[in-house]
Amino acid sequence: MSTQERVLSGFRPSGPLHIGHLVGALQNWVSLQDQYRCFYAICDWHALTSEYAHTEPLRHYVLQMALDWMAVGLDPERSTLFVQSSVKEHAELHLLLSMIVPLGWLERVPTYKEQQLQVKGRDLTNYGFLGYPVLQTADILAYKARWVPVGEDQISHLELSREIARRFNSIYGEVFPEPQPKITRVPRLPGTDGRKMSKSYNNAVYLSDPEGEVRKKILTMVTDPARIRRSDPGNPDVCPVYTLHKAFSSQSTLDTVNLECRRAGIGCIDCKNFLLDHLDPVLAPLRERREAFARSPDRVKQILEAGADRAREVASATLAEVRNAIRI
Amino acid sequence: MSTQERVLSGFRPSGPLHIGHLVGALQNWVSLQDQYRCFYAICDWHALTSEYAHTEPLRHYVLQMALDWMAVGLDPERSTLFVQSSVKEHAELHLLLSMIVPLGWLERVPTYKEQQLQVKGRDLTNYGFLGYPVLQTADILAYKARWVPVGEDQISHLELSREIARRFNSIYGEVFPEPQPKITRVPRLPGTDGRKMSKSYNNAVYLSDPEGEVRKKILTMVTDPARIRRSDPGNPDVCPVYTLHKAFSSQSTLDTVNLECRRAGIGCIDCKNFLLDHLDPVLAPLRERREAFARSPDRVKQILEAGADRAREVASATLAEVRNAIRI
Repeated sequence: MSTQERVLSGFRPSGPLHIGHLVGALQNWVSLQDQYRCFYAICDWHALTSEYAHTEPLRHYVLQMALDWMAVGLDPERSTLFVQSSVKEHAELHLLLSMIVPLGWLERVPTYKEQQLQVKGRDLTNYGFLGYPVLQTADILAYKARWVPVGEDQISHLELSREIARRFNSIYGEVFPEPQPKITRVPRLPGTDGRKMSKSYNNAVYLSDPEGEVRKKILTMVTDPARIRRSDPGNPDVCPVYTLHKAFSSQSTLDTVNLECRRAGIGCIDCKNFLLDHLDPVLAPLRERREAFARSPDRVKQILEAGADRAREVASATLAEVRNAIRI
Repeated sequence: MSTQERVLSGFRPSGPLHIGHLVGALQNWVSLQDQYRCFYAICDWHALTSEYAHTEPLRHYVLQMALDWMAVGLDPERSTLFVQSSVKEHAELHLLLSMIVPLGWLERVPTYKEQQLQVKGRDLTNYGFLGYPVLQTADILAYKARWVPVGEDQISHLELSREIARRFNSIYGEVFPEPQPKITRVPRLPGTDGRKMSKSYNNAVYLSDPEGEVRKKILTMVTDPARIRRSDPGNPDVCPVYTLHKAFSSQSTLDTVNLECRRAGIGCIDCKNFLLDHLDPVLAPLRERREAFARSPDRVKQILEAGADRAREVASATLAEVRNAIRI
């Protein structure tokens, strides 16, 4: 077990997970469980970087995220599922790393200025928000993780983590391996309105949605805007439903839709029903597992606590090494 | 005991303490022990903000500082003496506070730009150096300290700590009292070369100096530069030895020196011997206590560990309240 290479990843608990998270990250996380020793963190401290003044739903989101994770098949027996703030070593390592991270490195992170411009209604000029990548690096390095499954938008953050690991090693001696990305190249899924799927656009299909809700969302989803009547031929290349097909349907369904839509052989409702035929079998067992866990919130809490204990064991061994290297 | 108001202060372990520290801070700390519940921290994490690449003497400095403190009469039975990095709650609170501290507050701290210009041979453009006042605030607030004995140069830092406490309370509800300064108005002592006493100028009289060393340093100390021959009248107002007299000698000695120096009734050696007559009785018992503790380094470590245990008890109660207020 302990000779396996380690994987670390995590999510901010900022709301329920949707099918975009499923194909964009979670399915990948599930498959990594076979080969690696995986640590998956619900990053509540990270949530504070932007949500420090809106913490009321945080504990609820943490529990919901644990349910979503176990629903998709993250297995607390094989993987370590835990809440970041339960493992204080992340805060200690964050502090120690903060001493060696040049401000310029943080100010030049592409997402830093970007988010400040994009995120509305949040004051992001705080010290902690600037330090987000330092905390992220601490999360990774506390477990000496070799691999970090990330989307392409996160590659620059991981590059910074490698820089920080390298700088630490060059000042204090070799302690950290340089974490490498495992990139998930799944394109972002469109939501029901055709824009990218996102909680903030209110266009997401959630893992926790009941079957009828999923059906309703898919059946009312926008399609190729040029296809107005049933008899108009459609263009799958510009249809958001077709993008969902590519994520969930079989090759033969893809072929059928591609052919029949273009010659108006099927209508949009037919096409959406084909999608549901493939989506339902993915979501049904997931929904079932989710409901089972949701009935025992105490068990979920126990699982997270046991995960934190295991995480702490690894992180505290790393921190002992770190303190020794720094000679503090 | 627990109803007593709390005091917190600390030093960075950056080298042995000198008689400037004694009159500028430590004598005040000693007297506060009677009235308050005092927490005195050896701030090794703070030392890293500038010394992250020069950590080799750090552990030695920590031990020496504990010896200096107990030598001057800080009493581990009455006060809580501990090493900052032993109490992880400081790191956790630092992280939580970082989320609500505007960068502008930190960039505007007068000492921030000042130190970057003054301190040579150190790269101070790191994230952790900018966050120095956040960590200092965490040190204070972890104990809900009412009072912080500081020199006048530290008042702006403490103002910032009050601002941060106020901001926390306004976002999450009343948790922290606003820490108030107990200002030590003792002017900086001059060193043996007449510049301000400082380790970096190699002009300090250390608490750990043997008696002969103190005598040698004082007897070769610079005096009024205009007084060249024994028969020249001197001017105490510009003589650094006279400034030391003001810190250590009796009023009658001050009167004598003031009178006789100006009319060349005494020479500089006479004057310095008067000073030693007053300095020795201060330093002798201190030296004796220091040597006794120095013979049992294990006991000193035990004292610091017991102090950390007591500190942790208070800090972890505060952090529980903090987490509850944030709802994390």
